Amino acid sequence: MTDAYEQLIAHERETSAIAHVAGRLSWDQETMMPRGAAAQRGEEMAAMEAVLHARRSDARIGGWLAELEGGQGGDPVRAAVLRHVRRAYDRSVKVPARLAAEIARVTSVSQGVWAEARAKDDFAAFAPTLKRVLELKREEGAALADGGDVYDALIQDYEPGASAAQLSDMFGALRPALVELIGEMRAAPQPPAPAGEFPEAAQMALSRRVAEAFGYDMTRGRIDKAVHPFSSGSGNDVRITTRTNLRDPFNCLYSTIHEVGHASYEQAISQDYLFTPLGQGVSMGVHESQSRIYENQLGRSRAFTGWLFGRMRDTFGDFGIADADTFYRVVNRVHDGFIRTESDELQYNLHVLLRFDLERAMVTGDLSVDDLEDAWNRRFEADFGFAVDRPSNGVLQDVHWSVGLFGYFPTYSLGNVYAGCLHEALRRDLPDLDDRLAEGDLSAATGWLRENLQRHGGLYEPREVIERACGGPVDETALTTYLARKFRNMYPQI
Amino acid sequence: MTDAYEQLIAHERETSAIAHVAGRLSWDQETMMPRGAAAQRGEEMAAMEAVLHARRSDARIGGWLAELEGGQGGDPVRAAVLRHVRRAYDRSVKVPARLAAEIARVTSVSQGVWAEARAKDDFAAFAPTLKRVLELKREEGAALADGGDVYDALIQDYEPGASAAQLSDMFGALRPALVELIGEMRAAPQPPAPAGEFPEAAQMALSRRVAEAFGYDMTRGRIDKAVHPFSSGSGNDVRITTRTNLRDPFNCLYSTIHEVGHASYEQAISQDYLFTPLGQGVSMGVHESQSRIYENQLGRSRAFTGWLFGRMRDTFGDFGIADADTFYRVVNRVHDGFIRTESDELQYNLHVLLRFDLERAMVTGDLSVDDLEDAWNRRFEADFGFAVDRPSNGVLQDVHWSVGLFGYFPTYSLGNVYAGCLHEALRRDLPDLDDRLAEGDLSAATGWLRENLQRHGGLYEPREVIERACGGPVDETALTTYLARKFRNMYPQI
Repeated sequence: MTDAYEQLIAHERETSAIAHVAGRLSWDQETMMPRGAAAQRGEEMAAMEAVLHARRSDARIGGWLAELEGGQGGDPVRAAVLRHVRRAYDRSVKVPARLAAEIARVTSVSQGVWAEARAKDDFAAFAPTLKRVLELKREEGAALADGGDVYDALIQDYEPGASAAQLSDMFGALRPALVELIGEMRAAPQPPAPAGEFPEAAQMALSRRVAEAFGYDMTRGRIDKAVHPFSSGSGNDVRITTRTNLRDPFNCLYSTIHEVGHASYEQAISQDYLFTPLGQGVSMGVHESQSRIYENQLGRSRAFTGWLFGRMRDTFGDFGIADADTFYRVVNRVHDGFIRTESDELQYNLHVLLRFDLERAMVTGDLSVDDLEDAWNRRFEADFGFAVDRPSNGVLQDVHWSVGLFGYFPTYSLGNVYAGCLHEALRRDLPDLDDRLAEGDLSAATGWLRENLQRHGGLYEPREVIERACGGPVDETALTTYLARKFRNMYPQI
Repeated sequence: MTDAYEQLIAHERETSAIAHVAGRLSWDQETMMPRGAAAQRGEEMAAMEAVLHARRSDARIGGWLAELEGGQGGDPVRAAVLRHVRRAYDRSVKVPARLAAEIARVTSVSQGVWAEARAKDDFAAFAPTLKRVLELKREEGAALADGGDVYDALIQDYEPGASAAQLSDMFGALRPALVELIGEMRAAPQPPAPAGEFPEAAQMALSRRVAEAFGYDMTRGRIDKAVHPFSSGSGNDVRITTRTNLRDPFNCLYSTIHEVGHASYEQAISQDYLFTPLGQGVSMGVHESQSRIYENQLGRSRAFTGWLFGRMRDTFGDFGIADADTFYRVVNRVHDGFIRTESDELQYNLHVLLRFDLERAMVTGDLSVDDLEDAWNRRFEADFGFAVDRPSNGVLQDVHWSVGLFGYFPTYSLGNVYAGCLHEALRRDLPDLDDRLAEGDLSAATGWLRENLQRHGGLYEPREVIERACGGPVDETALTTYLARKFRNMYPQI
């Protein structure tokens, strides 16, 4: 006679294993799948989604939970498992199987429609599909919200415990500091861009070396090229993708470091949690805190870029940048641009805030898809001071909405705020960190993050795990203080 | 109100889609998976197997079948679907879920144990694992056999309708003709081996060109490198692997052509059958008939090798073979060797017959795993006239037994017999075929196979689809007549 907890865990392990497979399939779709397989893959994904939905809404889970809740007797792991299972179960019961399968089917195809529309710079070609995706996600959100706020309900999939109101307050406090710094930096002299061409094989080899320096375990992962860099998987099979640009080696390098942050988090989670609800990163915001602290606070620091400059010289010879100080300003260049993923540390969050406000309005019904392109263009010009020249540089630039990720964007900026807090704590605990970074040795920093945050997986709630690691409350001023110090020190003459 | 057939088909479609995903996962394991992920992958595969087993043994299928069988009213597609579903359902009901999941788990790990034992040339390191696999497969066979022959029951998974007794008769008739021809060819002068090194990238590029010449649709497939060449998938996502050997370009080329035969079959099946039980090759024997006719009767013909010789010269320059006649003898060299997959058209079937007899004895209990290595070595020396020098050249050379494929080997020789019959019919229908092959144009031959056999998928029973294509009964003399003519014409002086 197995007890309820053992039965629940056995069920969860199998569900988790199947979810791993579905994730691996998505990776395949982005990296390996032949293009003629797209429609067939849609049906395969829908079938997997149906299996997962049936398992997650299995009525036995409700029975096990009823028997177990309130009786976990102080075991924090068990309590956390039950908390996750409860959340997922309630979610699955609320969303009809038909709707879940339909979302899987539509979003599997809609991504291709978006990609084609982007290639043709034709928002109208994407609008009918986006309407359908939005309609389905609003239906899902309404089912989840139980009469509450639909957008808040969607956020929970990415950031449990967060709300639009709370994020709006945080972003409202962030914005003036960013706007002030961006204004100062626009007056600064532009450093030179790197010159010449950077062979793709050499970029990939250097990226691999840097990934390993950041602690990415290649025996439990791999790096491939894809249109959109991403990290995929948990436990002992965590893969990343990156991309190359012949004239811009930083695209590949910093995409890689960013994804290594995500992947390292997954690889570092306690093996005890594998195939349980604790065996993956706890939220998108916490995930993003890892990718961003790897990429920016560590990867774009003066100390680390000094080491990286040497490795770039080893790999590419003279590439038009004379010294490490200039190199530091190049990789931290504040430059006008249309594209979120290519933007600098200061302007990045303005991009996110724009999307947050627009998608919230779409979900609440205040903004229609037909008006989206115009709304984007007006807001962009107001925020950035210049006009969008074409849809692929504007409303069509991001994949997220095409696959139904409404409520995801704000976690990017939340992750930056978290990264600011973690960086403050890490610097406090590791006073000689810069000496290590200057030698390309990231082990102290990544070890600190692994020990204080990453290994816990889903044991604590998102905000809680950040506050435990930092030893204090989350506060956006840690980020703005860091940014102000960094950028003002970079251009002391202004 | 949906009728029983529609409900059954909807269930089958979803099961088939999930099976596609499991197949894609196996492909990933052989090509892309990081090595540290092996144990985790084992649990993922077991979970998928459990889902598939539950779906295939769903009691509703029994109800739908009871309602539908006998009443299909002459619709051949519907009758074939019900026949396949009945066979799979009976199979699933007979094999306990626990056993199916255990087989999936053990064979996922055992392949790694085999690979390591082979690398170390240590059969004893593999024996305990093989014992466990054999034990599980015998248990499965006994559950399927219902008191009948256990080995026959296992064969049905690969070749429905075949039996060990019938195969044994066929192979008994095949053997003397092969032995006689091999004896003659041993007296023939050996042609020169190709000289120098053949860059791997160029081998892969040429293989890709040859694959497309054979009609492989790269928009619905891809070619990667793997230790063991294979084809994987159905419909619009059919991938192959191949391998390269720096000194032997034929390994890559003919592995590719062989797998293209398998993959083309899958790609050619009517799109109407996608995600139904008819949407894949009907048996391993019929599958092998396609891979072998592509590889040998077409790919190693005098006419096609004349064209290929020109492309080899274009690609590699002078590679030590003076003319097309010599080249033809080189790619058809009858050479002593240990390895099945590297053996020539004549000796290949002797390799298979050895495995058939040994695995049959293991399954019936007449041969223990502890005695297997010795039995292999004795039989090999008796059949081939020289002794096995080490386990990796003998009992450890093939992956099959490590993953539980007992009953699979005989389908290789059955496929060769089928290929012999198909080739006879194809030559009869296409009298000017050699003129086309000499120009590297395989479209008439592959078009004939597509039209007469491949497109039917699982519509007919294995032997039936061959006989329909050939217009007459299966007879092994078609193969032996072809072989005798080919090899005796090649060396008229003997």
